[in-house]
Amino acid sequence: MKTRSPRLQDLGEDEVVRELANGLPVDRSVVAGAGDDCAVLEYGRTGYYQLFKTDCLVMGVHYAPDTPPKLVGRKALARAISDIAAMGGWPTQAVVTVVLSPSFTLQYVKDLYAGLSGVAREFGVSVVGGETSRPAANHSGKTAMISVSLLGLVEKGRCILRSGGREGDQIFVTGLLGGSLNGKHLSFQPRVWEGRWLSDHFQPTAMMDLSDGLAQDLPRLAKQSGVGFQLVYSRVPKAMGCEMKAALCDGEDYELLFTVSNDRAEALHALWTKNFPSLPLTNVGWLCSQEESMAAEFDELKGWDHFEVSTTTGR
Amino acid sequence: MKTRSPRLQDLGEDEVVRELANGLPVDRSVVAGAGDDCAVLEYGRTGYYQLFKTDCLVMGVHYAPDTPPKLVGRKALARAISDIAAMGGWPTQAVVTVVLSPSFTLQYVKDLYAGLSGVAREFGVSVVGGETSRPAANHSGKTAMISVSLLGLVEKGRCILRSGGREGDQIFVTGLLGGSLNGKHLSFQPRVWEGRWLSDHFQPTAMMDLSDGLAQDLPRLAKQSGVGFQLVYSRVPKAMGCEMKAALCDGEDYELLFTVSNDRAEALHALWTKNFPSLPLTNVGWLCSQEESMAAEFDELKGWDHFEVSTTTGR
Repeated sequence: MKTRSPRLQDLGEDEVVRELANGLPVDRSVVAGAGDDCAVLEYGRTGYYQLFKTDCLVMGVHYAPDTPPKLVGRKALARAISDIAAMGGWPTQAVVTVVLSPSFTLQYVKDLYAGLSGVAREFGVSVVGGETSRPAANHSGKTAMISVSLLGLVEKGRCILRSGGREGDQIFVTGLLGGSLNGKHLSFQPRVWEGRWLSDHFQPTAMMDLSDGLAQDLPRLAKQSGVGFQLVYSRVPKAMGCEMKAALCDGEDYELLFTVSNDRAEALHALWTKNFPSLPLTNVGWLCSQEESMAAEFDELKGWDHFEVSTTTGR
Repeated sequence: MKTRSPRLQDLGEDEVVRELANGLPVDRSVVAGAGDDCAVLEYGRTGYYQLFKTDCLVMGVHYAPDTPPKLVGRKALARAISDIAAMGGWPTQAVVTVVLSPSFTLQYVKDLYAGLSGVAREFGVSVVGGETSRPAANHSGKTAMISVSLLGLVEKGRCILRSGGREGDQIFVTGLLGGSLNGKHLSFQPRVWEGRWLSDHFQPTAMMDLSDGLAQDLPRLAKQSGVGFQLVYSRVPKAMGCEMKAALCDGEDYELLFTVSNDRAEALHALWTKNFPSLPLTNVGWLCSQEESMAAEFDELKGWDHFEVSTTTGR
């Protein structure tokens, strides 16, 4: 009897990505492929790795239809920049694909590009190509989708994967978590300078950006490092007006989550405050053995999952 | 009085792209940005340029909903490979973004990726990342969109832009043109080996791939080279069963269109036939001054344009 293939709506995003990442062709130019914040690629015979990331925004899923197009364009590129920052690198060049209903005005697209170009300039990114298309004619209503692919560079000795965490490492997050839908999901600052500083001075053992919320992202980091984690709830830095659940599950924080060896944690705190006085840094827990992990407890806290049809739109 | 911004449906694709390409930030790492088949980027202190291209396929626009997903995945990557070939380079790594309604099955996505991975293996491309998302909840009906971004490399001396054509150069096309919707738009072979061979032995002065049909693409090449063109209609190599209009306007040929200096044209013909006996090469005309150009005549022949709402779907 033939088993029916499950529908995407019945699967989690991680599950789909895992299924798809299996069996992708990769050669020796690939240091790390699908599964980290960015792919890591050899970059000729230089002292650098190249970083490569793709990301997309869908109207009605990742942003509300009445969001000003400048902010949409800004967010589309800033999300990808945040992923490059999470590897310890800096962004270099981007290409953009926009799919828009023909009823959008030229001004809308220009504003979208203006927002994207603004954040590109701020972080030294060249925008080197674009593709435009329209959605299928059977779509009533307006459709908009922006996909951005971004390149970056990082010194070989400063590239930080999700997989390097070890038992005993201390877990840190930058900024305050939760409530991003109140505006931060459109105005966040990708943590490029912070990531560069960290990779230069403290060589985090593992790092990623917080896009789906600590409750989903911390277990991912621990899993890819092959360890467990202990989170001290009382330490989680909550954004103003946020309950614990919001701080853990809202997602779209675009802060850095990273681990540092236990003996360097104290020095990090002191130096951080001097260098980034206006951005909180919080030691929220530590990595431990898988047996002692809080991972099972976290399975019940669900963050943002793209294929869950029950999820409210508007993020 | 405020002038109303035109809607995308009232503008051609070239017009939209031109508007958007204005004012994009670029730095010295960019040898050629938006406007050619690919962006051309510095690649460290090596003898190579890096090529960077994004392209997308929308169900109901670029392929019929009942197209087997393996062929859709194949086409999504093969189109981008064709653009790399058109610069004289070879493809290296790709990332993929897929937006699919939650009602699609996991098997559909797996098949899509299998087709993409197949053509990736054939051309030595590593697939190093992917992003999955769903369309907005207000879409009834099924939505599917695949966006691919692809990197490539080319020796600095062998990179061929659209802009290098000069008066007197002979114009060539590979293969037979027209009727692609009968199947070739899904099964075409990106002309990587042919482009490599050309860039090695004959250094074309300008080259691009034929995606929108000779009637649209030849004027583009001539315009970017700052010259005019003469096309000899009777020489246009028509695919079986195709009238002239189909050969000129159908689009999706994915053949190479290139120009070679007049004194090398004869030698090219002889050597080509020896190296690629099963792929026709045709000298369809020559580049001339803008005053002698047939460009005005071509304005009436319209190829495929993504924002024209009147265009039939299914391509």
